[in-house]
Amino acid sequence: MTLQEKVRQLDMYSGATSIMSSHTDKTHATASAAFLPEKADALWANLGVGSIHDLNPTPEQANAIQKWVIAHNRLGIPALFIEEGLHGFDTGTVFPAPIGLAATWDASVAKQTGAAIAAEARATGVDMILAPVLDLARDPRWGRVEEDFGEDPYLTGQMGMAYVQGVQGESLNTDHTVIAEPKHFVAHGSPEGGTNTSPVHIGERELRMVMLRSFEPAIRDGHAMGVMAAYHEIDGIPMTADPFLLKTILRKDWGFQGFVLSDLGAIERLYTVHHVAASLPDAACMAIQSGVDMQFYDLDHALFQKSLIDCVHNRTLSEADLDRAVRSVLRVKFALGLFDHPFVAPDLNTREHRSSAHLAVSLQSARESMTLLQNENHLLPLAKTTQHIAVIGPNGDVARYGDYENEANGLHISIVEGIRNLLPHANVTFDEGQSIPEAVAKAKDADVVIMALGEKQGISGEGFDRSDLNLPGNQEQLLEAVVAIGKPVVLVLENGRPLTIDWAKKNVPAILEAWYPGEFGGQAIAETLFGDNDPAGRLTITFPQTVGQLPDYYNSDPSRVYRYVDSNGEPLFPFGYGLSYTTFRYDHLSVQSPRPGSGGNIEVSVDVTNTGSRAGDEVAQLYMREDVSTVETPRRSLEGFSRIHLLPGETKTVLFHVKQTQLAVWNAQERWAVEPGNYTVWVGGSSLAPLTAKFFLKPGAK
Amino acid sequence: MTLQEKVRQLDMYSGATSIMSSHTDKTHATASAAFLPEKADALWANLGVGSIHDLNPTPEQANAIQKWVIAHNRLGIPALFIEEGLHGFDTGTVFPAPIGLAATWDASVAKQTGAAIAAEARATGVDMILAPVLDLARDPRWGRVEEDFGEDPYLTGQMGMAYVQGVQGESLNTDHTVIAEPKHFVAHGSPEGGTNTSPVHIGERELRMVMLRSFEPAIRDGHAMGVMAAYHEIDGIPMTADPFLLKTILRKDWGFQGFVLSDLGAIERLYTVHHVAASLPDAACMAIQSGVDMQFYDLDHALFQKSLIDCVHNRTLSEADLDRAVRSVLRVKFALGLFDHPFVAPDLNTREHRSSAHLAVSLQSARESMTLLQNENHLLPLAKTTQHIAVIGPNGDVARYGDYENEANGLHISIVEGIRNLLPHANVTFDEGQSIPEAVAKAKDADVVIMALGEKQGISGEGFDRSDLNLPGNQEQLLEAVVAIGKPVVLVLENGRPLTIDWAKKNVPAILEAWYPGEFGGQAIAETLFGDNDPAGRLTITFPQTVGQLPDYYNSDPSRVYRYVDSNGEPLFPFGYGLSYTTFRYDHLSVQSPRPGSGGNIEVSVDVTNTGSRAGDEVAQLYMREDVSTVETPRRSLEGFSRIHLLPGETKTVLFHVKQTQLAVWNAQERWAVEPGNYTVWVGGSSLAPLTAKFFLKPGAK
Repeated sequence: MTLQEKVRQLDMYSGATSIMSSHTDKTHATASAAFLPEKADALWANLGVGSIHDLNPTPEQANAIQKWVIAHNRLGIPALFIEEGLHGFDTGTVFPAPIGLAATWDASVAKQTGAAIAAEARATGVDMILAPVLDLARDPRWGRVEEDFGEDPYLTGQMGMAYVQGVQGESLNTDHTVIAEPKHFVAHGSPEGGTNTSPVHIGERELRMVMLRSFEPAIRDGHAMGVMAAYHEIDGIPMTADPFLLKTILRKDWGFQGFVLSDLGAIERLYTVHHVAASLPDAACMAIQSGVDMQFYDLDHALFQKSLIDCVHNRTLSEADLDRAVRSVLRVKFALGLFDHPFVAPDLNTREHRSSAHLAVSLQSARESMTLLQNENHLLPLAKTTQHIAVIGPNGDVARYGDYENEANGLHISIVEGIRNLLPHANVTFDEGQSIPEAVAKAKDADVVIMALGEKQGISGEGFDRSDLNLPGNQEQLLEAVVAIGKPVVLVLENGRPLTIDWAKKNVPAILEAWYPGEFGGQAIAETLFGDNDPAGRLTITFPQTVGQLPDYYNSDPSRVYRYVDSNGEPLFPFGYGLSYTTFRYDHLSVQSPRPGSGGNIEVSVDVTNTGSRAGDEVAQLYMREDVSTVETPRRSLEGFSRIHLLPGETKTVLFHVKQTQLAVWNAQERWAVEPGNYTVWVGGSSLAPLTAKFFLKPGAK
Repeated sequence: MTLQEKVRQLDMYSGATSIMSSHTDKTHATASAAFLPEKADALWANLGVGSIHDLNPTPEQANAIQKWVIAHNRLGIPALFIEEGLHGFDTGTVFPAPIGLAATWDASVAKQTGAAIAAEARATGVDMILAPVLDLARDPRWGRVEEDFGEDPYLTGQMGMAYVQGVQGESLNTDHTVIAEPKHFVAHGSPEGGTNTSPVHIGERELRMVMLRSFEPAIRDGHAMGVMAAYHEIDGIPMTADPFLLKTILRKDWGFQGFVLSDLGAIERLYTVHHVAASLPDAACMAIQSGVDMQFYDLDHALFQKSLIDCVHNRTLSEADLDRAVRSVLRVKFALGLFDHPFVAPDLNTREHRSSAHLAVSLQSARESMTLLQNENHLLPLAKTTQHIAVIGPNGDVARYGDYENEANGLHISIVEGIRNLLPHANVTFDEGQSIPEAVAKAKDADVVIMALGEKQGISGEGFDRSDLNLPGNQEQLLEAVVAIGKPVVLVLENGRPLTIDWAKKNVPAILEAWYPGEFGGQAIAETLFGDNDPAGRLTITFPQTVGQLPDYYNSDPSRVYRYVDSNGEPLFPFGYGLSYTTFRYDHLSVQSPRPGSGGNIEVSVDVTNTGSRAGDEVAQLYMREDVSTVETPRRSLEGFSRIHLLPGETKTVLFHVKQTQLAVWNAQERWAVEPGNYTVWVGGSSLAPLTAKFFLKPGAK
């Protein structure tokens, strides 16, 4: 390949606005739009195309473009079509937002979600989606918390791996799998001040033992073939200029075989924001030299490509690094089978788009994500014979999807619609709550009031960081006014981050956290409120009492002090927490150090019994810590979990297999070490699980 | 020395409760108490004593004890007497708290303060004080902000060095100088969640470029002979178990010749809190091995000393490290001249205790610390002819000293007393404000209202961390009620940390920040309110709008985003800010790269003119940044300051000499480097100074 051909593979081109006869918005070609070869000719001539983004093509459009691309470069290299796919692809099935998916604590649902999104994408000719987000949500002010799987590295790692395995399948050379792209590498979820893209202040140990662990399973075991390098800097080094992370950790240590895409604008920001590059050309070369393989059209295409060629000529960019980047992109295209099967079958999209199987996954995910935070005097489930139900609040008559989805997509079943569908004979009234007196009047007429509160798009989501975590607008006053009338009140939250609902906790008998539950959200909520679905979602992020106690995450080090003059500093609701309509007992906890045949694993078993009178799911959680370690380690860390279904009175034995490497510390000598010594385990239904045992670990036994 | 004699030198013994016939409290022997040799014999036998603390002796008591100690160990090694001395020694002169001292931006006052405290201490037989605090106050929730010099490493470094030079003088072998002990090494001011002793999350670059820089001048140039190792961990490594910091940085890189004392309980916490030691003996040996030289009586004396001996015998503690610790302690005792002049002259204390010279320093510091935050329509200064003045609020009739002082000490001049002294013919009324209607009634009768608000001990201070930063208790409501009556209102704040007084900023015409201004505080405040003192204090810590935008400090990196959905994220009052009763103009800014004869310094000069009609002080501030650096560097960093006095119309040329090493970055190759390239300077009266110039630096020129 010539240098010109090589650098072309490292560039991304926007689709809808550049090569099509019309577009509905920046990211979508009109369905009837024609591909315009003369525009492609002007843009690409005969040097090929790295990738095409923001097109969301029909299969026919994708095929037409791909055909042209292959025919118009010397080596017949196909283009890579890349689109968003965080919790649904384009106009396809809308799944719960990741923070809700994580609340299921069900890796199989994550895998099925990924697989469904991938199948809907590939069926249109798209080869790669920009998901999952594996940042740890350690600052709820950050608007992108809703895109995360929560605050814990193990849970995020497991959910992320499952999602990637679903997206990429057993093989990428199929008609239903695409490249997954874990992001935002790495630690993007701890920005200073909680504001998006701000610096991250952590040391190497926290980077390795916490932040990188959320990505590692998706790369090492999930074999994700894409990674997005993030916007921020850690301790002065921007992510797109960090060869330690992009070369040493990702490629050398983890064996990453795919390509690194920079986030939109991240290369430009090396010059304009971070001021570590002296010019835009300098920024381009610095990124590739550091381990980035493709730009996200930050820089003018001609400038980007010429800069790389110039840098190779003047030896400020090694040709070996340029070749690494080219090889990484081409390897992905080969893995996808694009050289052999570049086109999508015309009727595939009809079968895959919003298939009944995909819709079923969305509904299951929504049901499993329902997280019951409070249920005084068993107010829930409500009787299906309830005559008059008032739904009040801005989230009552709309489906809240969260960011990276259009709320016009899908079935958008609202809470009101969900209840009306479930209880066709009940009188279900609704008030948005803009006028508190009118809402109170409606509430007075009802037998029970469902307060539908939380956050809408523009309050949560990318770029929507908050400096307080209260219910937005007049919602707190609305809630207090309705509660004051004395009717039974259920608070249903749809929101993208923990909210400081301490008043509600003290005054509202039942609180259901629904996150952003996808297109079947209203159905799943209604089923949960009226007992057809036992809530077994568990929090994957700590709810603080106040914004002034941040950061607040369960797996802090034991020397973290929580007490303030004006607050006990305790969480409002802890990590792992969630109620059920039934109850569970844990006993017979036993721990086995690695022994012959265990594969080197620590084996933990516990009996879980449904002690109530209803069937239900429980999420059994395993936490561990080394009693004395050479460096300070978290007070407890999640090391295993299992969601199980139990009939009334039923007992199941849950087995956890913990790899010794899960317990490795990055020690003071800057080496990974599994340390011999006593360890403590806790097993139960939240991060406060009291059932405990100890074992002695002698590392190395297989 | 025998091992038994050696380890004894590494131990600290409490005084008042152990070897005296009576004590007034844990930290004070009764003035008439007798030294009890039989108790000393039981405690110390004939092996000597490292140090004695919490005694606050009379000279006679100190001499009696010292005489016994010297006579009762084989080598005649004297004891070291250690006491607190943060902003005053025992019952001596009470100086403004460090956050107020820093607000003077006057290193000579810091030096005089240190010298006065040292002289009062040494005159009683005390050899060392546990000050200054050089942590950077980057989290205002932390209760110890009042003990700091603010958020900036350069300012803290310069004030700290001056204070140490004052305390230690030209020689320690005098009757008026003692050992200074910068603390809490290092970065104690950025605890997670703002709670005291919590982990600090920073990387090595921030550690070196920000946190260590606040200590370096006090050690390298100030030659401080004591350092206190802090409680917390950084990235998993507790400070008392960190040989990188205590050996490599402190001793090898900086040439520290003194001894490292652990903070009270910090060694014990290696076992009980951090869980990096397997037992208390393990903790003791780990600390000494890591570079700690003396314990702060955490551990039982016999246990501590035996543990070290046992560890030397079983080779888990090298004798070289034990000897390093012993040598460090003995070197300090020699430096103090204790071997030759172990006793204090009996009449010295009479001359030094609260001498008029020391009192004058306190008053000057208080005057210079007054920081005017707001002065709409020139409400201040008030006319001395004002007839009726109402002082309202919990800080009105009491002197607020802040932590590490007893408010019964000194003259404790309150605001009410200060105004009455200054205006003996005015009618000065007072109401504490507990009942808002009564306070409002008093305000209605007055010509002007002074609202005396802020924080008392127990809300600010060690262990008094807050999760919100509002005016405490009913003070906000009290303020709003008084402002509502329409009288001229001046808000005077005495407090230990920034408060989120956004309502006051919008609604109160004049705001004076007085911090904790020492025993002459009320006098300095009155003089400022009525124009005898021109306020020229400047903030050394950013005031945020809300607690939800923390951390908020001026010298963040340029990629830090401040905007929130619900706030512009701007500071309420920025670092370096403060008004005057006159006005200043800056012009003729010029910058010279290092040239022959400059000593390798960059020279910056600017003309400052008093453009008003009153004399006043201005604090000229120099900020710099490298335009493009190999690692991301702060948007601007303070690199020079000069407090100058200007008569009306007067112009002075201010010269700043910036060492090239001030501009060094810890680069990606983990080396210090002064990088060639363009640099920008800004000069003016706050961190928002607009006057700017650029220069090109070619490093190395001398």
